Amino acid sequence: MTKEVVGEGGSFTAKDYHDPPPAPLIDAAELGQWSFYRALIAEFIATLLFLYITVLTVIGYKPGVVDPCGGVGILGIAWAFGGMIFVLVYCTAGISGGHINPAVTFGLFLARKVSLIRAVMYMVAQCLGAICGVGLVKAFQKSYYTRYGGGANSLNDGYSTGTGLGAEIIGTFVLVYTVFSATDPKRNARDSHIPVLAPLPIGFAVFMVHLATIPITGTGINPARSFGAAVIFNEEKPWDDHWIFWVGPFIGAALAAFFHQFILRAGAVKALGSFRSSASAV
Amino acid sequence: MTKEVVGEGGSFTAKDYHDPPPAPLIDAAELGQWSFYRALIAEFIATLLFLYITVLTVIGYKPGVVDPCGGVGILGIAWAFGGMIFVLVYCTAGISGGHINPAVTFGLFLARKVSLIRAVMYMVAQCLGAICGVGLVKAFQKSYYTRYGGGANSLNDGYSTGTGLGAEIIGTFVLVYTVFSATDPKRNARDSHIPVLAPLPIGFAVFMVHLATIPITGTGINPARSFGAAVIFNEEKPWDDHWIFWVGPFIGAALAAFFHQFILRAGAVKALGSFRSSASAV
Amino acid sequence: MTKEVVGEGGSFTAKDYHDPPPAPLIDAAELGQWSFYRALIAEFIATLLFLYITVLTVIGYKPGVVDPCGGVGILGIAWAFGGMIFVLVYCTAGISGGHINPAVTFGLFLARKVSLIRAVMYMVAQCLGAICGVGLVKAFQKSYYTRYGGGANSLNDGYSTGTGLGAEIIGTFVLVYTVFSATDPKRNARDSHIPVLAPLPIGFAVFMVHLATIPITGTGINPARSFGAAVIFNEEKPWDDHWIFWVGPFIGAALAAFFHQFILRAGAVKALGSFRSSASAV
Amino acid sequence: MTKEVVGEGGSFTAKDYHDPPPAPLIDAAELGQWSFYRALIAEFIATLLFLYITVLTVIGYKPGVVDPCGGVGILGIAWAFGGMIFVLVYCTAGISGGHINPAVTFGLFLARKVSLIRAVMYMVAQCLGAICGVGLVKAFQKSYYTRYGGGANSLNDGYSTGTGLGAEIIGTFVLVYTVFSATDPKRNARDSHIPVLAPLPIGFAVFMVHLATIPITGTGINPARSFGAAVIFNEEKPWDDHWIFWVGPFIGAALAAFFHQFILRAGAVKALGSFRSSASAV
Repeated sequence: MTKEVVGEGGSFTAKDYHDPPPAPLIDAAELGQWSFYRALIAEFIATLLFLYITVLTVIGYKPGVVDPCGGVGILGIAWAFGGMIFVLVYCTAGISGGHINPAVTFGLFLARKVSLIRAVMYMVAQCLGAICGVGLVKAFQKSYYTRYGGGANSLNDGYSTGTGLGAEIIGTFVLVYTVFSATDPKRNARDSHIPVLAPLPIGFAVFMVHLATIPITGTGINPARSFGAAVIFNEEKPWDDHWIFWVGPFIGAALAAFFHQFILRAGAVKALGSFRSSASAV
Repeated sequence: MTKEVVGEGGSFTAKDYHDPPPAPLIDAAELGQWSFYRALIAEFIATLLFLYITVLTVIGYKPGVVDPCGGVGILGIAWAFGGMIFVLVYCTAGISGGHINPAVTFGLFLARKVSLIRAVMYMVAQCLGAICGVGLVKAFQKSYYTRYGGGANSLNDGYSTGTGLGAEIIGTFVLVYTVFSATDPKRNARDSHIPVLAPLPIGFAVFMVHLATIPITGTGINPARSFGAAVIFNEEKPWDDHWIFWVGPFIGAALAAFFHQFILRAGAVKALGSFRSSASAV
Repeated sequence: MTKEVVGEGGSFTAKDYHDPPPAPLIDAAELGQWSFYRALIAEFIATLLFLYITVLTVIGYKPGVVDPCGGVGILGIAWAFGGMIFVLVYCTAGISGGHINPAVTFGLFLARKVSLIRAVMYMVAQCLGAICGVGLVKAFQKSYYTRYGGGANSLNDGYSTGTGLGAEIIGTFVLVYTVFSATDPKRNARDSHIPVLAPLPIGFAVFMVHLATIPITGTGINPARSFGAAVIFNEEKPWDDHWIFWVGPFIGAALAAFFHQFILRAGAVKALGSFRSSASAV
Repeated sequence: MTKEVVGEGGSFTAKDYHDPPPAPLIDAAELGQWSFYRALIAEFIATLLFLYITVLTVIGYKPGVVDPCGGVGILGIAWAFGGMIFVLVYCTAGISGGHINPAVTFGLFLARKVSLIRAVMYMVAQCLGAICGVGLVKAFQKSYYTRYGGGANSLNDGYSTGTGLGAEIIGTFVLVYTVFSATDPKRNARDSHIPVLAPLPIGFAVFMVHLATIPITGTGINPARSFGAAVIFNEEKPWDDHWIFWVGPFIGAALAAFFHQFILRAGAVKALGSFRSSASAV
């Protein structure tokens, strides 16, 4: 099995890797850097484009009743969500880390990859971007927007709250687990493949989860996506169910962060130790 | 997070990168090089193949009325456009830069990546290639070509001019933003993934935009594609709307060039300075 | 043709490669390592997620009778299986080798890539994960789960046992042959392309086999997938046919291991010699 | 724009590359090497698997008349062809060069990448593999095989011979042009992207051509595929049209070889010189 070890700072090192030091909770220095605001702008624009393209695809799903196969179908909708995440993670990874999703930001915050202040500001930028993206769709698709449900997430008929919450938790777990795997510096383990495809499996994870759970909740796994659609659509049912699309993804992201950091990354005892010191640092 | 820094000229350099110097507006020397004419031929052939495959897919969409789902559907059409861009950018990137689209050429010209003379000649080659590609489709598909609208772009019923223009602007922004991200030498920023997939996300960006905006304008985001189809189809409606498919993509490309060069690439002040000196150089 | 030779241990060596030494049948040392149990957990979770997403997609295939094309179709189901294998092999390759399939584990065991104890424990973890994954789907989709056959594999009407067995053998051969090709250290042969995409072709192989053989057997090529679905669905027909989905994949994996190790990897005589010494070691 | 120059023999060289010397027409030495026969076996098996999976997908296209959306559709068929080429080129590239298509072998022979004897033997292995692959499909799908036309290529109603021939020529041109671009050692040209995805764009090229030309000829662009299906189906219409599926692809491959070697790779005069010396060597 081939091993490729890409060290930090551009040098190639064998059999070793560096974890970046945990991000501080509050990093006052980053507030003075243009790169911080640039990252916020990049998250805002990326989430705006994500919601614009995906909700437009959802709304344009059935342009005519005459032609039963005229729309792109659920498969096309799933591609729109997965494909845009692939493209946008690819584009923004070098600027903001390519989160485009408060659940991803939350998971990376729990793993101490981003500071608290950055995490909160990212989520604000993502939610604002999502609102603007769905707003554009409503402006462009006045007649169909309301008829096709505005791309808002809510529990479909016949599914219990527990099922919806479970679907969101597991779906977000798949996504955030993939994000952690794709960005893990410790990819020099036994039998590892060469890890150069980071944004592609992340996009595919989103694609797969949509294929599976669109019939249940319409698939959230991204609180900004659900929030933006709920704000612009603004009807009772999506707001009633809205908590599912924050609680579920955040629980799923936390489980994925826990799974990656304490099961996959370290021996149980060592992990426990690092958990304690990490907790006391908080 | 792993960082890989691929410097210019094949050497690996850490924490640094070189921007190529801005292309001159008029570079007389390149007119004497075979590589310039080779690039024009490559753009001509690539745009010809692009229009041939994609418009043939559009026309073959519904081969029989008996079988309502017999065609490839809108999803198949979107794959044809996105997939061909992936393949052709991959093939021609080393020869001509792989533009295959006047809006991409315009965006790269604004960012001073290509000279004015090269930009103009590329656009001419692209438009001629597009005309030839659609001409082949008409020759091959006489009976269906006109019946299915010849693959020409025009505003669909129920959408205002502003909506069509907006859809083209944002769609082209997504594409050209991806092109800039994929070819950016500054990919050594914090949290960056390893950037080796350039033509794939560009193709996916085209795929996604088609999924979203086929119901609105048929999706242009490529003036050569719209021009070639309009010339061969040659009916009133596409010509009336034709300006949308030049103005929209050029505005979208300019916004993407601005966003990438002055927001993402540099601090605001430094950016402003470079904008001034760049403008005065013009 | 370009050649890239990635040697073992992270160093780059030209015109040469190292085969890892054959794994021992019983490696007592690995039982004392956390990495062994971590690998089992990773296989369990990955197989759980694989079955959860894919069987949920199968069950959600036709959410309404009103809309004949409302579901994701066989194409969407094939994407779910292939795409999840891509994502999960990518995620777990560095932890457990990314098998997620007893037939793959069996093939790699025959090629002496994993020890007997590891192979057996992986298969147990995979089967348990599959049961849990399908159990989640049943819990989430009570009403549709039984109506749509629970995602269980069985021989479809009109196909003989021999056809079903043959389809499983060849389908698994395609998958395991791709796994061997993707993880082969000897990729410095004449005309080789650069092998950095390992999990992607593995996922595509699964996708293709599903496109071809869903009409025959529903496509197993993964005994854990068939076992988990049979346990939870628990009806007579799938259990009657169940042996096909163990015997077929194991024969296919053995043929692929033989083909790769003794035809592709070495001269016939040398291969024969290594076969003898390998057999005597057993 | 980043440049990566991967030289021959595993070493990294900047701003330079080596063309391998032209293959001799008849290379007696290779007949004595196991690697030659191994390559033939690999081509045979790969073409067998290619036809098996793809024709099985075509035949399983509409398993029931009741469900109009039950099959994988033309989009699924196009994926089967393109995806299998991606997987099989990936798997066999290091063993045989991954041709799996007499037109590709012919193009590479014209460009002096393979010897005459190797080219002829590859084509024989490919045609035998194709016959066996389609034979398996007929054995597995007795009832549907004949009803759905056996996957044989022929000119569809309403298209002239010239259109069919043209579609095959251009379709094969797209494929072979992509093959040349993907395996070109001169990828250090201006603006080049990093070329690590060789089998993926080749597979996508096949996918795209199928989307576009299935309505015209069923899409050949691979004489072994057309030959194998014609032999097993063995009806008059496919045999009458069969010459199109050899002449068209060979012309397309020759045009692509010419385009790549004499337009893209070298200045016209230099190219002409090399053409003469190459021709005199013949």
